[in-house]
Amino acid sequence: MNVQGVASRTIWLEPDGRTVAIIDQLYLPHELRLASLRSLADVEDAIRNMRVRGAPLIGAAAAYGLALAMREDPGDDQIDRAADRLLRTRPTAINLQWALSRATAALRAIRPVERVDAAYRIAAQICDEDVEINRRIGAHGLKLIREIARRKTAEPVQVLTHCNAGWLATVGWGTALSPVYHAAREGIPIHVWVSETRPRLQGALTSWELAQERIPHTIVVDGAAAHLMQRGRVDIVITGADRVTAHGDVANKVGTYMKALAAHDNGVPFYAAAPTPSIDFAAQDGIAAIPIEERSARELAWVRGTTADGRSTEVCVHPAAGVLNIAFDVTPARLVTGLITEHGVVSADPQGITGLAEAIEAAAR
Amino acid sequence: MNVQGVASRTIWLEPDGRTVAIIDQLYLPHELRLASLRSLADVEDAIRNMRVRGAPLIGAAAAYGLALAMREDPGDDQIDRAADRLLRTRPTAINLQWALSRATAALRAIRPVERVDAAYRIAAQICDEDVEINRRIGAHGLKLIREIARRKTAEPVQVLTHCNAGWLATVGWGTALSPVYHAAREGIPIHVWVSETRPRLQGALTSWELAQERIPHTIVVDGAAAHLMQRGRVDIVITGADRVTAHGDVANKVGTYMKALAAHDNGVPFYAAAPTPSIDFAAQDGIAAIPIEERSARELAWVRGTTADGRSTEVCVHPAAGVLNIAFDVTPARLVTGLITEHGVVSADPQGITGLAEAIEAAAR
Repeated sequence: MNVQGVASRTIWLEPDGRTVAIIDQLYLPHELRLASLRSLADVEDAIRNMRVRGAPLIGAAAAYGLALAMREDPGDDQIDRAADRLLRTRPTAINLQWALSRATAALRAIRPVERVDAAYRIAAQICDEDVEINRRIGAHGLKLIREIARRKTAEPVQVLTHCNAGWLATVGWGTALSPVYHAAREGIPIHVWVSETRPRLQGALTSWELAQERIPHTIVVDGAAAHLMQRGRVDIVITGADRVTAHGDVANKVGTYMKALAAHDNGVPFYAAAPTPSIDFAAQDGIAAIPIEERSARELAWVRGTTADGRSTEVCVHPAAGVLNIAFDVTPARLVTGLITEHGVVSADPQGITGLAEAIEAAAR
Repeated sequence: MNVQGVASRTIWLEPDGRTVAIIDQLYLPHELRLASLRSLADVEDAIRNMRVRGAPLIGAAAAYGLALAMREDPGDDQIDRAADRLLRTRPTAINLQWALSRATAALRAIRPVERVDAAYRIAAQICDEDVEINRRIGAHGLKLIREIARRKTAEPVQVLTHCNAGWLATVGWGTALSPVYHAAREGIPIHVWVSETRPRLQGALTSWELAQERIPHTIVVDGAAAHLMQRGRVDIVITGADRVTAHGDVANKVGTYMKALAAHDNGVPFYAAAPTPSIDFAAQDGIAAIPIEERSARELAWVRGTTADGRSTEVCVHPAAGVLNIAFDVTPARLVTGLITEHGVVSADPQGITGLAEAIEAAAR
């Protein structure tokens, strides 16, 4: 997608063939900074501190983390050690586990001397596949938007999203926003309500990337979604997914469950865009099975912004108060109209998820 | 209630008998500043810019605004002009209208020369009555909390609230928090989940006043309420109300409707604490009848906080993005377990509201 008019990914390999470059998302939308990751520790820090974030991008970054770890030591023990360290950076998104399982299995099967090159190759593959998966999510989601556009004549299609499940959360295209980008490229008039997503204000990331692609959008506070839906101002809700269980429960950024409740109460369809690496086929009941990350109080109490004289800085908005920073929540399957995956739109229930498992198997044959 | 250990109100008349003093809520919790209101224009500014806020306190401040206006000119025209100007400061809370109707009717009935003193007397009366109303709301709400405490043995009663409907939103005691203060004084172990309430972060006000009264509490982001309820960590939701219709629909700070949906989905009782001056007996369907205030984009895009070196300042969190700042929403009566009023806890339906109208009439006889 475009950054200041130039096509870019969120993560890439530098021409030296070893350094991993990222857009450092800590500073967006205030500053566009790049960062270089040169070691396993750099990648751990980038994931843990959300320099890269979003389930698909976390998976891709972890694969590169393993490659950098192999460069440090390509031994068997290091595979386990590195995977273990990376796995502990963020607990909720399943993509991390998926990417690491895939990469470590491949690396264990080959000789240490071949592992560095192989690990970089696997990471690059995961990145390329992510772009392709998200392109297909966009194509499938586009059909839902087209359907709404057909019913509406004068007005743009109104999409509401939460957090950032755009291309910044992935390697390219995004998940929840990929249908939006596809619709815009097809010329469908569209407007996005961006839920600002406290505490980390990922809505500002969504706004930044939508602006780069010139998609009309408006930021609202997280509490405003139900009001907008009650007044008929939202046609469809599309969010991302950090983990989807075999029952169709969806773990995603805290606040997603409340968006789904608002949608349900107002007859607005609620979709989660979920690449199949976000599906945890082994998990059943999302409330029991999915670990919900609690992050540092500081992330909630302090907010980054730009001062009137243009400096990027942090201020404390909750001095002296106890805060609890719950990062995710679980939306019960019953509130989810459907899952937008690279294999099509499926129902958020055991039947839908089983169908996906079959589609993945068929694709692998 | 206590400010740094000293009993205080949020608004009072200075010893000079004319200047109105307030706690300037723009700077809390970062700084405790007082402000002096010496003219109608000062009061308009204080209400419009939320130096005073909260439906009951807005009503009290407006009554003092009328007194200051009478000091400027006690003529008939000035009564209308001043009431009109005050009425236009905030559209959603009905208390403003209630206080002004009451005061202007009384002032019109007397000679101009008596109006200054009378207006101050009426404002003081409205303030004293507010404290008494809220004390009674606390006593009625306390019964609900006592009931929960009886069922729970080891753990404190867990109350979740949104925005600030504490004593800072009133002259004394608060509405939603009055039952909490009463429970704490009775020795009932209690903990309050404070929804931070973007964009203006009134949760920080709630936290500040709870800290002054040494009530255990934790701030969470607005999106976290449903998660807490899903995990059984909330026993009761109590919010304030800016306007309640004869049908029982509740207009309150944006995000309240989503809290009510979350409570309903998780079997948690949801109460709005509503002094009867917050009830609009003439309004039926809240969605059609209640004007929803949209405030300036700047209030959402800029956030006040304290820098690492201790300075209170504002930063822009959404540079260059379009934002829509919807200040209130309407919770349909079907999601409201009950209304906690000074005349008892009533159902949020035409029957409950009619009962209240009768109680008000009986009290006036």
